[in-house]
Amino acid sequence: MKITVLSLFPEYFEPLLRTSIIKRAKEKDLFEFETVNFREFTKEKHGHVDDTPYGGGAGMVLSCQPILDALKSVRTPRSKVILLTPQGDVFQQKMALDLSKEEHLIFLCGHYEGFDERIRDYVDLQVSIGDFVLTGGEGACMVICDAILRLIPGVIKQESSHDDSFSNGLLEYPQYTKPPVYEGKAVPEVLLSGHHANIAKYRHEQALIKTAKNRPDLLNDLDLSEQDQKVVDSILKNK
Amino acid sequence: MKITVLSLFPEYFEPLLRTSIIKRAKEKDLFEFETVNFREFTKEKHGHVDDTPYGGGAGMVLSCQPILDALKSVRTPRSKVILLTPQGDVFQQKMALDLSKEEHLIFLCGHYEGFDERIRDYVDLQVSIGDFVLTGGEGACMVICDAILRLIPGVIKQESSHDDSFSNGLLEYPQYTKPPVYEGKAVPEVLLSGHHANIAKYRHEQALIKTAKNRPDLLNDLDLSEQDQKVVDSILKNK
Repeated sequence: MKITVLSLFPEYFEPLLRTSIIKRAKEKDLFEFETVNFREFTKEKHGHVDDTPYGGGAGMVLSCQPILDALKSVRTPRSKVILLTPQGDVFQQKMALDLSKEEHLIFLCGHYEGFDERIRDYVDLQVSIGDFVLTGGEGACMVICDAILRLIPGVIKQESSHDDSFSNGLLEYPQYTKPPVYEGKAVPEVLLSGHHANIAKYRHEQALIKTAKNRPDLLNDLDLSEQDQKVVDSILKNK
Repeated sequence: MKITVLSLFPEYFEPLLRTSIIKRAKEKDLFEFETVNFREFTKEKHGHVDDTPYGGGAGMVLSCQPILDALKSVRTPRSKVILLTPQGDVFQQKMALDLSKEEHLIFLCGHYEGFDERIRDYVDLQVSIGDFVLTGGEGACMVICDAILRLIPGVIKQESSHDDSFSNGLLEYPQYTKPPVYEGKAVPEVLLSGHHANIAKYRHEQALIKTAKNRPDLLNDLDLSEQDQKVVDSILKNK
């Protein structure tokens, strides 16, 4: 897996690569990562990469030439080109998994007011991180890279990812660690019992309950067993 | 506005503060920002902040003591404490606007497998950035801070934000800048006409069309005029 990010602010991505799990994966060469500052590709004589919008309005709009010339310099037939934009498909765990299997991802990060609409014609996929507005695509790109990179084999332990929230369609069950009582709040007894089957049953039920309480919309896509449906119904009835 | 972030990786937030729009706002003292590494608060003799989960399973779970002692050291009666978690309310532009009016936001960033469930009892709000899993809360927190900080008065020009995607419930209209033709692709003529009323009408229609095509779910919450409803219906019919 290779990731290429086109951005005016390559330094934005340093902490991702210098921190914790992703840092260790980088040291083990589990992926390649490069940034390309498309400012270096501009043919505008003062080095500008943006200009005023046609039709008027506040803010500046990124021009086609620098971004698309930068893109041409890195794109290969095996690249998948992704534009970060609030108008794109909403990023979700399933998309992270699909993208983690690609050979070469290229991300285009806009900044400021936006980019020339014609740039959309040159990309394979438009992705949004959610229904909110950022100063640029960099933050969204960093988060998406984090979500994708941790799914590359070897980056985290296999068992760690398959109970993650969303991986089986449910939110994750509650986790507890020492001490058994903290400020009067006790760990559920079943977790201290050592009875594996009961613990598994408790965790599955708690994941169902959390999902029904906090994100009932996630349940629409699931094919629940009769027993699970009963648990969910009783939560939804008392909501 | 003051933001305090509790995290094991304070360096993650440097690029946000060193870059572009947020950097200039910081230089103008439009907000305060501090990070607190809760590792410094641990009473565990080897400096650990996490431990194995009760009931077994992969990964480590962050303990109550260091996080909650760090929280106590910074919380005031005017603080709003936000936990980043995939199980929280999904962050959206409306939430960004509400949070941008708070006096003091404290964000708790988990990392690795998760945190002790009892920590949830100490927070005011649980927020998720979307339906995907990250190596930690830091990326989500950075994105949320970016979305909030740009809404603080003076950070960006007032006019810039009110046509943003989601600000009026619609995706943003297409933007174009020079040249008028790029690789055979022309800017829509109306934008070159100088006719302000026509441009405004075109942009409003395009925002409707984009939203109906890409994110029809956003239209459910809007009270559209009869004319706008006709535009939307014709798009949805041909989809």
